[in-house]
Amino acid sequence: MGEFEIINKFFRRQVKTAVLGIGDDCALFSPSDLNCIAVTTDTLVNGVHFFPETDPFLIGWKSLAVNISDLAAMGAKPKYFTLALTLPENNLQFIESFAKGIHTLSERYEMELIGGDTTRGNLVITITAFGEVPQNLAVKRSGAKPGDDIWVTGDLGAPALALNQILNKVSPPGYSAMKLNAPNPRVDIGINLRNTASAMIDISDGFLADLEHILDASNVGCEIFIDQLPLAADLSVLEPRKAEEFALTGGDEYELCFTAHPKERAFIRELADKASVNISLVGSITKETRIKATSNNRPYKLPLRKGYTHF
Amino acid sequence: MGEFEIINKFFRRQVKTAVLGIGDDCALFSPSDLNCIAVTTDTLVNGVHFFPETDPFLIGWKSLAVNISDLAAMGAKPKYFTLALTLPENNLQFIESFAKGIHTLSERYEMELIGGDTTRGNLVITITAFGEVPQNLAVKRSGAKPGDDIWVTGDLGAPALALNQILNKVSPPGYSAMKLNAPNPRVDIGINLRNTASAMIDISDGFLADLEHILDASNVGCEIFIDQLPLAADLSVLEPRKAEEFALTGGDEYELCFTAHPKERAFIRELADKASVNISLVGSITKETRIKATSNNRPYKLPLRKGYTHF
Repeated sequence: MGEFEIINKFFRRQVKTAVLGIGDDCALFSPSDLNCIAVTTDTLVNGVHFFPETDPFLIGWKSLAVNISDLAAMGAKPKYFTLALTLPENNLQFIESFAKGIHTLSERYEMELIGGDTTRGNLVITITAFGEVPQNLAVKRSGAKPGDDIWVTGDLGAPALALNQILNKVSPPGYSAMKLNAPNPRVDIGINLRNTASAMIDISDGFLADLEHILDASNVGCEIFIDQLPLAADLSVLEPRKAEEFALTGGDEYELCFTAHPKERAFIRELADKASVNISLVGSITKETRIKATSNNRPYKLPLRKGYTHF
Repeated sequence: MGEFEIINKFFRRQVKTAVLGIGDDCALFSPSDLNCIAVTTDTLVNGVHFFPETDPFLIGWKSLAVNISDLAAMGAKPKYFTLALTLPENNLQFIESFAKGIHTLSERYEMELIGGDTTRGNLVITITAFGEVPQNLAVKRSGAKPGDDIWVTGDLGAPALALNQILNKVSPPGYSAMKLNAPNPRVDIGINLRNTASAMIDISDGFLADLEHILDASNVGCEIFIDQLPLAADLSVLEPRKAEEFALTGGDEYELCFTAHPKERAFIRELADKASVNISLVGSITKETRIKATSNNRPYKLPLRKGYTHF
């Protein structure tokens, strides 16, 4: 099966809202009235972002999920994506399962695959995803103000636990394995925070590392309440200090970390109830540009390594 | 130097027309009034799309050029791009030269780099490029009509000659080497053909292979005038039949192949004069859905392999 047959059989779908989908030099689309386009691109490399033996369905799912998570962190509604797929060989079983993983998640958000490129080489997946958001409501990293609360969705540390256990040849608990391999981006929460969050980011490198991006972009500092961190239940097998380290520095969370004025607390707690998602108040933005941490009101020494970095 | 320092030092530039560039979860942009977004994505893999010893400036140039060529083939004006760069190591000399190649070409079209991802792995570059075009003027592959002329810009065969000579350890002539390594996408011609071309494609896999995409999408056939093919001057070292094969099936041309009603001949020749680019009438669209070829009015047997395919 050649490049074009693969695309037609496994990837091509009829587009609904795009003007033109797969099969021409370019795809064409227009944002709805008053919206602007939010665009993000993320690459997954075999052996770096996933284990070679990972189920291809999950590789497909995660490739798209990490991009959707970036759209969510902007408050954008997912709309379209392109797929650049580099494959070592024409393994139809792999491609079919990978495509199913991608389409299962894209259908949840009615996203349309509008283009791509298929090439030969070591397995690398680059997805570029497009969302829509009213221009003045996009939630940037740069809007955090001293006095704002710091919030985080869901729980923290499970993907780091799963990764750690897999590296130690231990089968991770189901919840943690799911968080690592099939993350569920917080799209609805991101969109509902458009008018509420002053700054927002998704946690891909690690809570501390990504929070630091908000602090840098906003030129502020923060205090983190370690005792308020929503540790994933699976972490109970660990020493408390180790569990906190996983929650603070573990990557691949795809939870949202955001800041908001304290007057928004009731709205945020109501949103959490409606969405049946935990949203935890874990810190406060400060004017002084450094990260301070306390646990039960006592000073807490943060780990030196804040998160994952490629180089 | 870490991932974020690399981005800031070599890639980040102030954006002018984008709403938000590098440095947040997503970039933001809006098309100008009445335009829609044309989007294309192309991957270049080390050892497949370029030789490992290729000058990184040229790798950067070509990575962007092949994407711009797809925008040109749609009649779109290049505007923005994202860069997903997978690198085996943090080689600053490589990155600096690569970034210079990208920026030199992007500046020519005032394109803005608005986002990306930097990861570790074998060298793979995926660029997603965005252009603007009035929705009803985008030139698709599907508009060719029986009786339309078939045109091709520039000349054909030089990149195939260069590739062939490099593989045989011969240094290729300068023009052919330039066509292979530093293609110049036909942006102005593409935009000027918005109201004229009935179908258009850029030649990346090979003239025959790409023309066939127009035929398939338009549900038509064609006759090709082999004696009218604009053979690159460097091909004169070859036997005529070999030169024609290079011109018919060689990839990496980044010339435009388009169809137009015969009443447009004067406009197209004037456009060629103004742009100082050869535009050759090389065939005619037929109702019968097959490819026929003649040379000086005699039947001509086309090569079996029509162009490059990855699998």
